[in-house]
Amino acid sequence: MREGAKGGILPGFLMTGFTPPGTGPRWMSKRVYLYDSTLRDGAQTQGVDFSAADKIAIARELDGLGIDYIEGGWPGANDTDDAFFARAPHMVRGRLAAFGMTRRAGRSADNDPALQTLLSSGAPVVTLVGKTWDFQCRVALGVELDENLRMIADSIALTAQRVDQAVFDAEHFFDGYKSNPEYAVSCLRTALDAGARWVVLCDTNGGTLPSEVEAIVTAITRQLPGDRLGIHCHNDTENAVANSLAAVQAGVRQIQGTLNGLGERCGNANLISIIPSLMLKMGFETGLSSHDLTRLKHVSRLLDERLNRAPDRRAPYVGDSAFAHKGGLHVSAVERDPRCYEHVTPESVGNTRQILVSNQAGRSNVMARFREIGLDMEASDPRIGSLLETIKRLEAQGFAFDGAEASFELLARRELAEVPEYFRLTSFRVIDERRWNARGELITLSEATVKMDIQGERHMVVAEGNGPVNALDAALRKVLVPVYPVLADLRLVDYKVRILTPDAATAALTRVMIESADAEGTRWTTVGVSSNVIDASFNALQDALTYRLFKSGQVPHPG
Amino acid sequence: MREGAKGGILPGFLMTGFTPPGTGPRWMSKRVYLYDSTLRDGAQTQGVDFSAADKIAIARELDGLGIDYIEGGWPGANDTDDAFFARAPHMVRGRLAAFGMTRRAGRSADNDPALQTLLSSGAPVVTLVGKTWDFQCRVALGVELDENLRMIADSIALTAQRVDQAVFDAEHFFDGYKSNPEYAVSCLRTALDAGARWVVLCDTNGGTLPSEVEAIVTAITRQLPGDRLGIHCHNDTENAVANSLAAVQAGVRQIQGTLNGLGERCGNANLISIIPSLMLKMGFETGLSSHDLTRLKHVSRLLDERLNRAPDRRAPYVGDSAFAHKGGLHVSAVERDPRCYEHVTPESVGNTRQILVSNQAGRSNVMARFREIGLDMEASDPRIGSLLETIKRLEAQGFAFDGAEASFELLARRELAEVPEYFRLTSFRVIDERRWNARGELITLSEATVKMDIQGERHMVVAEGNGPVNALDAALRKVLVPVYPVLADLRLVDYKVRILTPDAATAALTRVMIESADAEGTRWTTVGVSSNVIDASFNALQDALTYRLFKSGQVPHPG
Repeated sequence: MREGAKGGILPGFLMTGFTPPGTGPRWMSKRVYLYDSTLRDGAQTQGVDFSAADKIAIARELDGLGIDYIEGGWPGANDTDDAFFARAPHMVRGRLAAFGMTRRAGRSADNDPALQTLLSSGAPVVTLVGKTWDFQCRVALGVELDENLRMIADSIALTAQRVDQAVFDAEHFFDGYKSNPEYAVSCLRTALDAGARWVVLCDTNGGTLPSEVEAIVTAITRQLPGDRLGIHCHNDTENAVANSLAAVQAGVRQIQGTLNGLGERCGNANLISIIPSLMLKMGFETGLSSHDLTRLKHVSRLLDERLNRAPDRRAPYVGDSAFAHKGGLHVSAVERDPRCYEHVTPESVGNTRQILVSNQAGRSNVMARFREIGLDMEASDPRIGSLLETIKRLEAQGFAFDGAEASFELLARRELAEVPEYFRLTSFRVIDERRWNARGELITLSEATVKMDIQGERHMVVAEGNGPVNALDAALRKVLVPVYPVLADLRLVDYKVRILTPDAATAALTRVMIESADAEGTRWTTVGVSSNVIDASFNALQDALTYRLFKSGQVPHPG
Repeated sequence: MREGAKGGILPGFLMTGFTPPGTGPRWMSKRVYLYDSTLRDGAQTQGVDFSAADKIAIARELDGLGIDYIEGGWPGANDTDDAFFARAPHMVRGRLAAFGMTRRAGRSADNDPALQTLLSSGAPVVTLVGKTWDFQCRVALGVELDENLRMIADSIALTAQRVDQAVFDAEHFFDGYKSNPEYAVSCLRTALDAGARWVVLCDTNGGTLPSEVEAIVTAITRQLPGDRLGIHCHNDTENAVANSLAAVQAGVRQIQGTLNGLGERCGNANLISIIPSLMLKMGFETGLSSHDLTRLKHVSRLLDERLNRAPDRRAPYVGDSAFAHKGGLHVSAVERDPRCYEHVTPESVGNTRQILVSNQAGRSNVMARFREIGLDMEASDPRIGSLLETIKRLEAQGFAFDGAEASFELLARRELAEVPEYFRLTSFRVIDERRWNARGELITLSEATVKMDIQGERHMVVAEGNGPVNALDAALRKVLVPVYPVLADLRLVDYKVRILTPDAATAALTRVMIESADAEGTRWTTVGVSSNVIDASFNALQDALTYRLFKSGQVPHPG
């Protein structure tokens, strides 16, 4: 590990004579426990809808990563969560947690069906959320403050008897503390006295700022043991990560969060950002080894794939842009010494450095990009100037090579006349037809006819598909796979269309990005731009096939 | 303003007996100056490419919002920035800033062509970036430490003579301070002594944590005047907002950032998140009035539109999800008292509350959503149950009503038999053909044939378009506009396609979202799902047209 990553926060503090509360004293453990709520609070995200199979796959991945607690859902709340707990995966390194509420008012814990369902879920950890804000108890819920304390005590006591660990999520704790600090603290104390392993301070509305979290948590850790306290933040002021770190520095030892900051409204605290800061910069230990840490980007991506969401390229640590360099000035400097523009090594979190091509690109960017794809060119080569011109012209037309590295590589290598013409399209025609079939159903069929030359030989095929691009793809393969069998395992994994609305009154353009994969899981993205979406799709498809042929070292079929 | 927003940080501190440095003392000004770098550092974002027209439009908007400094670019660095400064817009409330570097080593400031170009740009504020990290000077640049100090002194002194205000951006200040605090501070002092109005502490690599920023800035404000210091943060640890707020609390009075956190790698500090926290929670003043603050969401959106980017619905304060409520429990509570789940009022930042429909939706969500679209239904109405079933079934098929409110409204109103059948499709056929034309050009044409019934009368039309959906749209309008002239001003503003890859081995589905607008700028989104993209597009298009007809109070044509 190099200096920038190893140094981090501690030298800074030593130097400035400042020791953050909770990190200094020798008796305080450096072990922070991570509690993932992706499958419960994260399931509240707008547009997110986990299946039980998704939940099982993600829980396994979290366990493999080294997360201490994996909250699977709320047994009894919906079919998906019931299905998940009914066939819950075996956890090897972490513990499965089930989430629910303290008992209802005016009813014994033994006699509360929801609580009983929860305790019978089979999860070794049960987390109960309860109230700590006097205003919410009285005004919103109409529950007496004393009865709320009894609800906490009874429910936690029963839970601690029945399962391995009881966790108390103190809902609205920060709002509660500001309104009535004595009462809010008495709720925490009640849960601890009743046997809760952890009491978690929740910033339910997400409106608390880091300086407030620091001040309030410091006040709490003077009264209650930090190694039984946790923090649960939301990102409504864009401070969920900072609030979580501030709470740990003030002494708490559990952090609740989600992968990629999934969660209601603006999301929960993002564990993917928190973990490397804790481990690489603050000197804390978690359940992850430094090898586990190098799997961080993979785990982040896996969640996006399960949810079929485009990964956030700007995500701290794991985004494709996190170690990407665009400005010509930065690029020359980063090549001289990465410490000038990188705060940790990309490899420590499983990421890689990226040198971008763009219309801000100077010669140094393009040269760096060439080295990345293994293209040896002298800086003085006159073809670099003409390639820069081509890139600028295509980007002005709407191409985006930043996200389509395969198309960029083909472009560069074509300029060097390195890419053979594996096939040549003469014409295509695609027909989509929606009509009533003989059984009285409304159906839509797509059919593509393709004419192409392969080394002088004319091919003509027709194929059907469940859409025009699928039909085109099928027709292309029908010709190409017999000639180039290496294309047989290629599959289209993502297809995205975006309309570019230019400033001027010219016609709108369509940009198609196609992501392809082979059997080994290698992925590459190609781009096509045209006023016609089918045309743009064909161009992106053609690049995807050509890239595969070129990378597999294929020589053009002799005809 | 209600309690939650008005209260904010100060009561919390008073209560806990904690006063953050820099905010307490009476003599310290509460006015924080905002410096926007969207058009300069933001232009480094991967995939972002401003035209000069974009820059002019955004600069005007920033000025109108009440931003103090608007950095337009780097004169002399590229054609776009030159074009911008050549016809720079007149600023009414803010000041335009031009960005560049201190003079080169071994050359006088008077004799540095880049510096001269910068000083002749016409901008009343000139910001010069310079080195403060001994390591970077010696190792990366090979410049002696003394010569670097002279570069700062000469360049700032000349700038302060030639323009209204000179600003010094202290590159890598935090890394520099950790490595050699004396030298880093001497760079700041040199710039101040030479006449810099502001000296800005830059966390260039974005790796510094909030507790470090707090400790280091506190050490600096003990030596140098906070009202001449600024902060410039990057989001590489997801702490750019927290770092900026920590620096202000430690005494600096200028914040540099960008709209929506645009910027290289993981982005710069997001002014859109910082401004409301400063004003609504921390009691600071900026150049914005509370009325300006209600335009925040609009300004955030304007940038996205200029860049043709989908807005981030999870963005703090201004995202569509920022005040959205999904879980049934939250929805009932938020309707009783918004303070339970909202940290500020949505209206204070120009946002609105949103009640979501989803497969987690309980009856209370659906009822709340109905009230939002003005649908009066009794809670006991048996049709609510069947509508819930329909929503769940369609969402299981891949529909996403969260983002397609118009399709949701049509679905609900169709269930109530409120939506007439304005037209009925019998069949369509779309042909896309790519071939060589008579002039030897490869062209692609799309042609759609549509057969439909309008109140018993059969219509059959054919139309061309620059793509299959465009051709279908043209054919539909060819039939419908003469019958329903209100459709003449409808236009398609966005068209998105996403492939849904289901867990099971069933066929992949395509989801199309279409955003439409009328002449008044009202926008609505509709959704279509099918294994065939043309089919899905047609369905989304049909909903878009029907929604417009329904909302304009159209009655079906009598035939």
